[in-house]
Parts: sequence; C-alpha cells; structure tokens
Amino acid sequence: MSEYGLLTPGSFRAAGVVDDRAVADAMVRVELGWVSALAAVGAIDRDRAERIAAAAADWTPDLAVIGAATEAVGNPVVPMLHQLRERLQPADAAVVHRGLTSQDVLDTALVLLGADCLTRVRADLGAASQALARLADAHRASVMAGRTLTQYAVPITFGLKAAHWLAGLIEAADDVAATLAGLPVQCGGAAGTLALSGELTADPVALAAAFAGELGLVWPGLPWHTRRRAVTRIGDTLVATCDALGHLGADVATLSRPEIGELHEAAAAGRGGSSTMPHKHNPILSVVIRSAAMQSPQLGAQLHLAAALAVDERPDGAWHSEWPALRRLLELTVTAASQAAELAAGLEVDADRMLQRATDAAADLLAERGDDGAGDPASYLGATDAFIDTVLARLSTGGPEHA
Amino acid sequence: MSEYGLLTPGSFRAAGVVDDRAVADAMVRVELGWVSALAAVGAIDRDRAERIAAAAADWTPDLAVIGAATEAVGNPVVPMLHQLRERLQPADAAVVHRGLTSQDVLDTALVLLGADCLTRVRADLGAASQALARLADAHRASVMAGRTLTQYAVPITFGLKAAHWLAGLIEAADDVAATLAGLPVQCGGAAGTLALSGELTADPVALAAAFAGELGLVWPGLPWHTRRRAVTRIGDTLVATCDALGHLGADVATLSRPEIGELHEAAAAGRGGSSTMPHKHNPILSVVIRSAAMQSPQLGAQLHLAAALAVDERPDGAWHSEWPALRRLLELTVTAASQAAELAAGLEVDADRMLQRATDAAADLLAERGDDGAGDPASYLGATDAFIDTVLARLSTGGPEHA
Amino acid sequence: MSEYGLLTPGSFRAAGVVDDRAVADAMVRVELGWVSALAAVGAIDRDRAERIAAAAADWTPDLAVIGAATEAVGNPVVPMLHQLRERLQPADAAVVHRGLTSQDVLDTALVLLGADCLTRVRADLGAASQALARLADAHRASVMAGRTLTQYAVPITFGLKAAHWLAGLIEAADDVAATLAGLPVQCGGAAGTLALSGELTADPVALAAAFAGELGLVWPGLPWHTRRRAVTRIGDTLVATCDALGHLGADVATLSRPEIGELHEAAAAGRGGSSTMPHKHNPILSVVIRSAAMQSPQLGAQLHLAAALAVDERPDGAWHSEWPALRRLLELTVTAASQAAELAAGLEVDADRMLQRATDAAADLLAERGDDGAGDPASYLGATDAFIDTVLARLSTGGPEHA
Amino acid sequence: MSEYGLLTPGSFRAAGVVDDRAVADAMVRVELGWVSALAAVGAIDRDRAERIAAAAADWTPDLAVIGAATEAVGNPVVPMLHQLRERLQPADAAVVHRGLTSQDVLDTALVLLGADCLTRVRADLGAASQALARLADAHRASVMAGRTLTQYAVPITFGLKAAHWLAGLIEAADDVAATLAGLPVQCGGAAGTLALSGELTADPVALAAAFAGELGLVWPGLPWHTRRRAVTRIGDTLVATCDALGHLGADVATLSRPEIGELHEAAAAGRGGSSTMPHKHNPILSVVIRSAAMQSPQLGAQLHLAAALAVDERPDGAWHSEWPALRRLLELTVTAASQAAELAAGLEVDADRMLQRATDAAADLLAERGDDGAGDPASYLGATDAFIDTVLARLSTGGPEHA
Repeated sequence: MSEYGLLTPGSFRAAGVVDDRAVADAMVRVELGWVSALAAVGAIDRDRAERIAAAAADWTPDLAVIGAATEAVGNPVVPMLHQLRERLQPADAAVVHRGLTSQDVLDTALVLLGADCLTRVRADLGAASQALARLADAHRASVMAGRTLTQYAVPITFGLKAAHWLAGLIEAADDVAATLAGLPVQCGGAAGTLALSGELTADPVALAAAFAGELGLVWPGLPWHTRRRAVTRIGDTLVATCDALGHLGADVATLSRPEIGELHEAAAAGRGGSSTMPHKHNPILSVVIRSAAMQSPQLGAQLHLAAALAVDERPDGAWHSEWPALRRLLELTVTAASQAAELAAGLEVDADRMLQRATDAAADLLAERGDDGAGDPASYLGATDAFIDTVLARLSTGGPEHA
Repeated sequence: MSEYGLLTPGSFRAAGVVDDRAVADAMVRVELGWVSALAAVGAIDRDRAERIAAAAADWTPDLAVIGAATEAVGNPVVPMLHQLRERLQPADAAVVHRGLTSQDVLDTALVLLGADCLTRVRADLGAASQALARLADAHRASVMAGRTLTQYAVPITFGLKAAHWLAGLIEAADDVAATLAGLPVQCGGAAGTLALSGELTADPVALAAAFAGELGLVWPGLPWHTRRRAVTRIGDTLVATCDALGHLGADVATLSRPEIGELHEAAAAGRGGSSTMPHKHNPILSVVIRSAAMQSPQLGAQLHLAAALAVDERPDGAWHSEWPALRRLLELTVTAASQAAELAAGLEVDADRMLQRATDAAADLLAERGDDGAGDPASYLGATDAFIDTVLARLSTGGPEHA
Repeated sequence: MSEYGLLTPGSFRAAGVVDDRAVADAMVRVELGWVSALAAVGAIDRDRAERIAAAAADWTPDLAVIGAATEAVGNPVVPMLHQLRERLQPADAAVVHRGLTSQDVLDTALVLLGADCLTRVRADLGAASQALARLADAHRASVMAGRTLTQYAVPITFGLKAAHWLAGLIEAADDVAATLAGLPVQCGGAAGTLALSGELTADPVALAAAFAGELGLVWPGLPWHTRRRAVTRIGDTLVATCDALGHLGADVATLSRPEIGELHEAAAAGRGGSSTMPHKHNPILSVVIRSAAMQSPQLGAQLHLAAALAVDERPDGAWHSEWPALRRLLELTVTAASQAAELAAGLEVDADRMLQRATDAAADLLAERGDDGAGDPASYLGATDAFIDTVLARLSTGGPEHA
Repeated sequence: MSEYGLLTPGSFRAAGVVDDRAVADAMVRVELGWVSALAAVGAIDRDRAERIAAAAADWTPDLAVIGAATEAVGNPVVPMLHQLRERLQPADAAVVHRGLTSQDVLDTALVLLGADCLTRVRADLGAASQALARLADAHRASVMAGRTLTQYAVPITFGLKAAHWLAGLIEAADDVAATLAGLPVQCGGAAGTLALSGELTADPVALAAAFAGELGLVWPGLPWHTRRRAVTRIGDTLVATCDALGHLGADVATLSRPEIGELHEAAAAGRGGSSTMPHKHNPILSVVIRSAAMQSPQLGAQLHLAAALAVDERPDGAWHSEWPALRRLLELTVTAASQAAELAAGLEVDADRMLQRATDAAADLLAERGDDGAGDPASYLGATDAFIDTVLARLSTGGPEHA
C-alpha cells in the first residue's frame, strides 16, 4: 500500500479503499456480521448482538498495535480481536468470533474490499465506455492509417480504433460484473468443518448462509480455505481489466508521439510537465495506465501461485503471500480505471492529421488491393462501420453494468 | 514443445496435440475452412473449394522448411501458404487465404489446438472427479487429523479432504466448459477491417460468421487482433485447473511422507523408483503434478502481459510472445490432468493409520472444544458430512461436462 | 508499502527504510548532494550550497501534497522540488536541481534506499549465519534421516542440513556485498547528455563523479536511464536472498510437523497462536519467511520486465512500473532476513528424535548400501563432516560481510 | 523445445544445443565423466573406464524410449542409464553411475548445456558489440531528437544511442563471462553426502573434484541439490541479456515507424513480408527480439521460484519445474543474441532524416536551455562525445569476452 502515493502515481484515486484502515474496518464488519448471524439463527440473544455492535460502532481500531502484533500469530485478526474484546463485557467478548477461524475473517474482509473495488472499477469502466462510444460514433468516418508490426497496413477509421478500446472495456466490465455477482463469504472454522459452530447451533450450514446474507455475499456451499478460485477469479478479472486499459494506454501513447501526433491527452495545468523542460506535454495518463498494465500480470500470477501451493486444511505460507498482491492489484486497477475514464473523456483527436497521413500514405495503405496509389483510403474500409455498430450495440444492450 | 519429453515428465500424454505437426495441421484446417466459407457465401465456386480441399487432403506440410522460414516473416503462416499454393493451380492458389491475414490463421489455429486440449482436460477432470467422488463417499467417516499451518487443528475426515479436491476439479471443469463454449474464430484481414473480404463478397461479416461455422467456433462479432481476452481466458482457465490439481498433488505428497503415511500412490512396476536407492517409492505423480502447478502461473502471466502490451492494429512483439507460452500451458495442463486422473484412480488410503493418529492426537485436535483429551475425534466433525453431500450433489448435477 | 503492516506480517522490521518518508528524504538528500557537487566543481558558490542545505535541514516535506501531485507529472520529484524551492531565495531556488532530470533524482533516491536495505540485509544474514554455524558445528554428528522427494533417502546429520542453509546465506551475503559495492548514481539530465550541466561547468562528467562522491555511490561512467541492470541487479540479489531464506523456512516448517517433530521454533509468548485453538504452536516465522520467498520471484520479474521494455531516452511506462516492485521487494527482504536471524537464533533441535527416527528407518536409509537393515546410520555419512567444515571455513574467511 | 520452430521464430539459430538429443548427449557425457573420475582416483581400473567409454562412443540413445519412461521415475536419467547399461558387460554396468544420484547427472548435464549456450551468447554479443561500436563511432556527431516519455526532450546523437545499446551488451557479456567462469558440477549422491562414493574411495571429495575437472566445470565444495543459486545465476544472466537486447529491439522498432523512419532493418529477400500486403517491410528482427525480452522475465522467475521452494535433501516438484524453463530460456537467449548480431550488422541509419527532424524540432529540443528556437541542436550535446568514448574504451579493454 502506498500511504501517500509517492511511488504509485494516482493512487489517491483509490484512497481509503484498500489501506490498513479499510482492512481493519472490513474485519470488524465481518466479525459483527458473524455476531448478527449467530443471533439470526438463535445461537445468541439478539440483545447481545446489538450490544456488541454498539460497542464496536464508535470504535477505531488501533492499527499500529494491530500491525505490530500481526507477525506473532501470522495475521491481523487475532490482535484486532484482542482490542475488540477489551471493549466488551466478558460474556459478550466470549461470543465474538466464536466458531470462526482467523482465515474466515481475513478472507471475507478481503472479499469485501474486493467488492468495493470492483464496484468502483465497474463505474469507471462505464464512464470510460461512454466517452469511447462517443468517440467511436463521432469518428466512424475519420480515416487513418492502420498499422501492424509498426508499419502501415490498410486504412481504418479512428472510430474503429475507439470501438476496439470500447469492446475491450465492455468485456472487462462483463467480467467484473460476473465476478461481483459471485463473491463468496469464507466460513469454515478451524479446519473447515464448522465443528465449533455445530456446538452453537443445530445447523451450522444455515449459520454460514446467514453470515453470507448479513454481508451481502454468496455462501458457496462449503469453505474454500485451500481452494482459492474465488481469489484468483478476482485477480484474473482485475488483470484482464488492466490488459484492456493497457491497450488503450499504449495506443494513445504511441499516437501522441510528436512524429505521429494524431491524438493528444487533454491539456491540463501542470499535467505532463517536466522538471527541466518547459515545453513538455507528456501523455502521462497513458504512461501510468501502461505502467499498471505492465504490473498486473505478475500480481495475478502471485495469486495463482498461492492457489497452486495450497496444502493441508490451511497452508503454510501460500495464503499469506496472497494478501499484498491482492491489495496492490485492487489499488492498481481502481487507479487505472479511474485514470482511463479521465483519459477517454478528454482525449483530443486530430482527424485532419489522420486524414492527411492516410492520404499521403495511400500507396502503401492500398497496396493490398493492388491500387496504383491514386486510390482513396476511405474506399477501402470493409466492415469498419458494421464493427463499430456491433460494439455500440453491445454497450447499449449490455445492461446496467455497462451504463 | 518437448519432442520426446526428457525434460517434461509425462508429456507423452499430450502427444500430437500441440506439437508443430498439430500447429501446421490446424493452420491448414483454418485455410480450408476459409475456402469453404468463401464458397458458402458464393465468393468462389464450390468446385474450386473442393479442388483445393482435395489437393490439401493428401498433403503433409514440410515442417522443417516452414520452421526455417518462420523468422523471416515472423510467423509460420506465410511459408505454410507458400507450400500449399505450390500444390495448387495458379487460379486456386490465388484464392487461398485471400481476405485473411496471417494472424487470422495462426490465432484461429491456436484456438483449435486449445479446443482439442480443453476437451481432453475436461475428460480427465471428469475421470478424476469420479474417482474422487468414490473416495469422498467411501471415506466420509474416516476420521483423520486436520492440519493448518503444518500443525494439528481439529478433526476432519478423509472424505471431506477428497470432497475438497473434487470441488476444485468441478470448479475447474466448469471453467473449462465455459471457455470451450466461447472459443472464437479470428477474422479481420490485414488491419481488422475485412477490407479485402469486402472486395470478394457483399457482406464480409457474413463471411466471417460462415468461417466460424466451418470450424465449429464462435464468431465474436469483430476481430480481436489486439484484444486478447480470448487467449487470456484460455490461459486463466488452464492455470486455474493446474491450481486445483496442484492442491491435490501437494496434499498427496505431504500425506505420503513416511512419518505421516496416510496416503500412498498406487504401486506400479518401476514407478517412483530411484537411480540408486532400491527401497524408494516416491509419490511421483504428485510430484510432477505439483511441478506443473508451480509452472502454470508464470505461463498465464505471459499471456496477460502480451495482452497488456497490445498496440496498433497488430502489435510489435507482444503477439509473438504468446505462442510458446500458450502451447506449453496447453501441454502442461493436458499432461497434469491426465496424471491426476491416474493418481486419483489409484490412490491408496490408510484409514487405520489416519484413525490411529487422530486418536493419539485427540488432546490437540479437540482443544478448541475445551475437551480434556479423553474425547472422541469423531464426535467433533461439525458439517463435514453435509459438505461432502454438497460436493457430491454438485458433481451429479453438473451436467455432461463433469460426467 | 505497508503502513501498519496488517497484511505484511513483520514489516515493522523494515519500518522507516522504504516508506514514503524515506523516499522523500532520499530525494532531498540527492538534491542536496547535487548542490554540493555543483559547489565542489565551482559551478556555484560554496555559500549558496550551504544556505540551501541549511534551509533544507529543518524541513519536513509535506508528503500528502507531494503524493497528490505525483500523478500530474508522473513522478514525485517535481512536487517535492516545488516545496523545497518555496523555502529558498529565488536565486538559490533556481540552482537547485539545475542540470538534473527527475529520473536522476528518483533513481538515485531508490538506490540510496537500496543501499540502506542491503546493508540491513547483510547484517541480518550475518547474524543468522553465526547462529547456523553454531548449529552446524554442534550437530555435526546428530544423525537424522535424509529425505528426497518426500521419502527417506540415506542418512545425513542435522549439522549438514544447517551447513547447507548457512552456505545459502553466505552465497546471498556475497551477492549482497557485491551489489552494495557497485551501487551507481544516476546522472544524465533531460535525455542523458548532461547538456544543461555542460552550461554550468566545463566538465560535466567530473560534476557527475563529484555527485556520486557526495552520496557515497559509484559513478558508472554514463547514465543508465534505459539500461536498468543496476536495478535488476539489486532485484536479483534480493530475490536470491529470499530464495535462500525460503529454503530454510521450508525445511523448518516441514520438520516442525508434529508427525516429524525434529525441529521447533523457539516458544515465545503469543507466538504461533491461533484465534480459536489454544494448543497451537505454529512455526510462524518459517511460514512468513516461506511466504516471502513465494513473493519475491514475481517482484524480481517485474524489474526485469521494466528493463526489457526500455525505449527512447526515457521510457513510457516501464520505468514507473519498477518503483512499487522494487520498494516491496526491499521491504520483503529486509523483513525476511530479520525474521530468519531470529528463527535461526532460537531454533530448537530435537536430536534424540532425529536419532530415534533414523534408527527406526535404518533399513530404508541404508538400502542403497545393500545392508540388511541391522546397520548403523552413523556409519554411512560419507563426506558429511568435510562438507560442514568447508562451509564453516567459508564463513570464517568470508570477510566482514559475513561476520 | 521447439522441434521445427513454427512457434519460436528463429529458433533454428539454437538448433541442436538444447533439444532432447543435446540433453541425452550431455547426460551420457556426465556419466562418462564420472567413470573417468572414478578411474582417476583409482576407484576403478583405467581399462574398465576406457571400455565403458568405447561402448558409449558409438551409441545413440533412443530418445523415444527414454522420454516414454521419464515420468515413471520422474527424470530421464534412469531410463538413459538402463539403455546404457544394456550395452555393457554386467561388471562394467554396475560401475556406471555408482555413487551418483539422478539429480547429479541431470543438473550437471543442464549446466553443460548452459555452458554451450552461454558461450554462443557471448560470441553473438561480441559480434553485435563490434557492429554497434562502429555505429557509435561513425554517428557520434549524427544529431537526432532525444525522446522521453514519447515526447521530444533535448538533442542527442545517434552515436550516443548506439553507445547505450553497446554498453548494455557489454554489461551482459560481463555477466555471461562471470557466470561461465563459475559453472559448477553437481555431485552429492542420494542425499548429498557422497556416502556411496565413500565406499568406493577414501576421499570422495577428491573424486567430486576430479569429476568437475573431467567436465571442465568448477567443484563448488559441496553439492547444491537444494541451493539453486547456480541455476538462478544462469537464469538471471540470460534474462539480463535479453533485457539489454530488448532495449535495442524496442528502439529500432520505434525508430522504424514510417512516421519516424530514422532507422531501418537491412532489407533482405522475403524478410519482414506480409501474407497479404506486398509493400510491407516489417522490422521483424526487432519484433522477435522484443518478443524474447517480453518472455524471459517470467522464465527467470520460474527458476527463482523453484529455488525458493526447495525442501528436504531434494525437493518434491520444485526441481522438476526448473527444466523446461531453463531450456526455453537458453534457447530464447541464444536465438535473440544471434538475431541481435544480425540486426546490428545490417542496421541502416538515415542520418539526414535524423538531422532534418532535429532541426525542425529545435524549438522544443532546446527549450530547456531557454533558446528562442533559432539554436542549433548540435550545440547542446553536453557530454555526448565523452560518453561514447567511455563506452568504446570499455569495449576495447574488456578482454576477450567482449571481442
């Protein structure tokens, strides 16, 4: 996590959603959800549950103390619990967390953070998509050079390029929506049997389901302490989102090169400046989005590696290796999606320059067709228009998650 | 690819599905599918299409020649085409590949390889699942020590452990089935506009759809030269499958340690032997499955990285970096899934030793409940049975892809 | 970065060395080093340099302001400079940073952080090595089962095992020392030509060398904005260190399994406890060290990837992708090395249990020799003693960096 | 491995150095080296050793049989031995491999492959360096635009750019030379104690040293079955080499863009063509070199991960995960270095276009100096010439490994 963000440009956009405060708050929320669930199934009195919730309501966990004690037990749940219980009457304190294991709490807390972040990402993908849809439609006939392996290929339009970026974002938003819809609660107790819960209530599975309901999550039927697809699915979704954003960033950065100059990021005071060169207008949003896309695959791999190394009823290091990677990937994607929304909204298109270049390069761009070079690039666009329509239709029918 | 498999134990299980011969055959199949599609939409005569297919039918591409010429153009499609066209009358040769770009052919060929491999993986996951289901049911009451962070936790049964492995395989098979159902054809021409196809037929999009139909793939509405979610989705699916298999392998390897000795791989002549120690019976299937799980995350990351670095209408290196990683990941997962099916089918369970250990360690295993050590581990199993039922029911209702 | 460390167990051990405050302080130190170097070569008055240093001496950069402004220009140097210059007389402010580019400052600042961290790592490797050397010597004759691919192999002694861990740490310490000795200053100006410096002094290369001298770093002869071996060398060194630590952690975690029980981490109040199981004594240092070793390869790969994607005179995203990975890798290694020193110092060896097991398993352990099972494992130890001596000698002659 | 290379463009450049034939030959060479060492220390008769060598001399291992049997024991050594022994008299057969373990043989064989590959890489780095040195010197005054974050910065010369590429290659060659000089033999027997060797000779350590000598490798003082720095050092060296090559490839690809057009790969018949566009002249060597640089970090990470997961006296999967990654990384780097030598030798520099652009963009390029736009870019080059001299001097004094 990036505190002030000196080494993570733009992470202020993810302020408060994945930092240690957010982790602690989510852990408390999970513990209170459990207490509520215990009350819901009759394992404890409703009064007790409310008293516990009230005691926690005006409490700010002492993060420094929790952090310092995290190593000794290997996770932050135990020291958080210690603080929470100190605020409670002994009989109430004994009830808190009873039936859970620390992994139940931390896994669920991280899923809650994931829910927050994916919701933000979805919103920013939606905003970016609207902006790209406008560009795709407005520039559906703005002819430009197609480029493959760095060289001129055949003509395209800028509308088609924008439609491709848009299609990538729609696919990402679909993934995000599907992942969001299936986010599971973790609930198994010490070794995944709900044994202690079985001492508290006749139907511990119903308790687990109630727990999920309290937190707005899915009860997946059994715990997943060592089956980590829920985590890798979040990860794959985030990485795929960054991939789509990276494509946008790479294209804008390339087309912003002064020798090409067909796109420009919106000029903003101080934006893209240099410490020494006054004329500089770096495509900085594209650069940092690209940078995010370069980072996310390794973070996603880390999550899969942890899944691949699961062993026993709870593993000996693999689980711990997930936490910083998942957090960083959440922060990175929230940040990059927000940056992309801003980038898309402000993107400046120099359609004249695109046309001029396509015209100048017509001999190359039309070589496939066998022209003699006198042809019009606009006459060789194939299904370009149809493709743009396809993508725009996909956005408009994509339901609320794309809107 | 592993030729004879000296450094890829068990890759004979994937023989012929991803080697260069398979790649070349798939490329030819794609070119012929295109010719058929051209005929289907009336862009060429049906006779011509049949003549081309006939000429290719008894042809074996010269892989050495293709391989040697691959670097010069950066992909194997051009030299394969050169060979194919030499077998054809000039007018037929001119039709082959017309409207496509090399990326259309290679992407689609790799998708076809992916389809073959995913189908095999699904079958082996199904076989492994049946074996694990039998174990889960037969051992639902076989009490054993639960272990977390390497130490005794609370009691479980081996049936629950098997059910978790099974649940992981079912989840993987669900992913595989979903990915298989959406495998797309690639079709866009030089820069993704179908411009040249538009010279051949009035509706190039219908031609693309017919192309997909000829190959049994999905036409995704527009090309995806620079939007690589189709590839990363295959990759994520394979990696997640290896994760689930790795969990199985890690548990079997651990529980096969002589000091634990609760599981054993099936004894087979020569299996698990040593070059120097005659007594050795290494859990070698588990070891190589674990090894696969350690490798797949990096391969999946490679695919995402390529996606993240896409630029222009077709990129300048990122695309090329996908090929070996995708191929290796396919081979690895086909191999590991087959090994897992064999491992599961032959797994030997020492339920007596499990029970003896759980009884000996009862004081620890029941400490959570507050017992004095005289308790019976079988009395503290919580929802174990219900969880096993849940997973078994999921298998039986999972439809054909799990059967 | 991990603020309070809720998701990075033990990161308090790296408190203050890589957080945003440390980054800012290092950047200021770099800017002042440059001013001193300017004075040293006569480009500015010594008085001016001292006035600037004095103004910075009692200054605490406002990290929140810097962080918020980092995205707009893509790095934290510009907003830091803005704050610093506000504290200075205009003529002094104009001198600060003159001739440098932001990458000069940030690269050098991160190298300084690297120097601090590597120095700490070296010290902890030294402490751990001393502890392991004592174990290797004390247990050179403590016979235990050798294990390969999880099964009994031939006998070893615990002293040999400790000697291997030690050898790994010595190799890591050698790498650390070599990397520390070559840490370079970054100095090139806007595009690596020292052009603006050439306006300030007749010999800008001498200025760069003086700059390195001010900061205790090496002047590598030319800037390395796009040649990132200095960064990947730090990364490779850290990852290799974590590899060696991971080997130790994996062995201790495995041999701490209750069914094996040959090693135990030192008992400490609260250490290794559980949120629910009172008997638990998890080998938590080993677990978190293992976890670090699982994380570092991906972080090192991130640094190489950034190096591989360098382009132009300063790249369009690759550079930015280094920062969080390098910082996290530094934090992780500092933490893990410190944990390993504590682990090694407190490791409890149950030599009786080792001997008992080796005696019980003698038939297997001596099968290679062809014994009938009546043999003594201590009689089949080959060069064990010689290997221990070799490693101990390597430590004692390894110079100060191992002591 | 890539058989014919359809998915690994240019791997014909590494033909025969890392394929299964090379692996088998190296394993045989290792076994014969061991027999020679046994004779050298008097453990067997010299006659016996010569008879064994003679029997192996005209033998071609049956790779298909070895490959098929590799899985059962988890490595190819045992089936190779089986074949070899069948060719020998029983008494001779009993001597072969005696004292070794399969990991001794395979590790050493892969080190021998590493030696071959690193030697080739060094030669190609040398050839590429000579070509780049000529460019650096010839174009030391060829002014061009410096570019940072895709935008114009200050002027450089093309000689400086070539000098940077060259400096990267020199650094890589230094790494390669250092790694080559330290390549170790693996020798420990079943669990790293040389116990069985101790039955054959009074001084098994001397036997190990003789073994190293027979193979031209270093005896590192003790075995390294679970300390994998030798492998990760090879890996880090190869990845760092690919990083340096990737920098070259990225710059050439970028500067070959038609809108920039300052560099061109050498025109060669068929090189860089398209399957559909006759005008195409893709910078294909740069593209595939870039692609290699995108792949190598993940492969290097795989090697570190295997090192990090080492456990026991020989690990349960980590070791196996090294083999395909190491082989692929060797093949990739041999290929890319050869491609880079060809790229550098044929690179075409359009110095006129560079100058024209720098002149046109002078206002931007000189903005840092505060010029009014009328300045001459050649007047603002700072230490450019000195830097070129520094790098050229480094090459000429770098000793034979750079020549």
